[in-house]
Amino acid sequence: VATPLQRFTSKTHVVDAAQIKAFARQFDPQPFHLDDDAAEDSLFSGLVASGWHTAAITMRLLVEGGLPLAGGVVGAGGELSWPRPTRPGDVLQVESEVLEIMLSFPKIISGHIGDAIQPGLEWRQWRQIVGLLDVRARLSVMPSA
Amino acid sequence: VATPLQRFTSKTHVVDAAQIKAFARQFDPQPFHLDDDAAEDSLFSGLVASGWHTAAITMRLLVEGGLPLAGGVVGAGGELSWPRPTRPGDVLQVESEVLEIMLSFPKIISGHIGDAIQPGLEWRQWRQIVGLLDVRARLSVMPSA
Repeated sequence: VATPLQRFTSKTHVVDAAQIKAFARQFDPQPFHLDDDAAEDSLFSGLVASGWHTAAITMRLLVEGGLPLAGGVVGAGGELSWPRPTRPGDVLQVESEVLEIMLSFPKIISGHIGDAIQPGLEWRQWRQIVGLLDVRARLSVMPSA
Repeated sequence: VATPLQRFTSKTHVVDAAQIKAFARQFDPQPFHLDDDAAEDSLFSGLVASGWHTAAITMRLLVEGGLPLAGGVVGAGGELSWPRPTRPGDVLQVESEVLEIMLSFPKIISGHIGDAIQPGLEWRQWRQIVGLLDVRARLSVMPSA
């Protein structure tokens, strides 16, 4: 891991059951994302958000100031994982860190993004990771001429 | 790469500008996903879908028969990339391939998922990849006792 170039912390977003079900109806219609009773009987023992919903909320938090890149946040790809599911009541916040700037063309930055849950006030005690993303993103630069 | 265990092909989904803008308003409010004129002046030279929208549509296609796993499609993580953006009019279809079944606990399958664009009837000629995902997913098995 290279020396961090810059770190950013996003605003927070509170996830609730209605958001989880609405996203699931549109993009991930599986019982553990759609229905409380069915979710209780699933391997998750309760309603959980689609991992793609967690990722989409992450993007919203990045775009709204969590990763202030002049030309926008344009990802090329990366490594993604969901160590724990997002549940109703979870408060998501994204911490990102620019790890490397590659002087290729187009300019690419490599970064690390973590989603954190903060349930309640003692969030430091309960802080748990629901998503991890190592990304390559396009970095816009001003033309030199 | 291991010998493919099984391959699946999903239904298709036609992406249009209204879907692209609706997803963007909720999760990725950047000009090249929201506004035709601003998108023309962007590095994409036209409206493009958020990469997370492409991923979410992929999940929908997988859940609706594109990856028929008995216990549902429950991803743990993977490597994701977007070689090209999804544009209005693109027809998405997901081809997936189970690469490996790891006999760990919980049971995990490793698979490769590709999104293909099929513009028009001559889709084989124009077939282009808009998303690639190498995933680890939980595989449900019946208890042996």
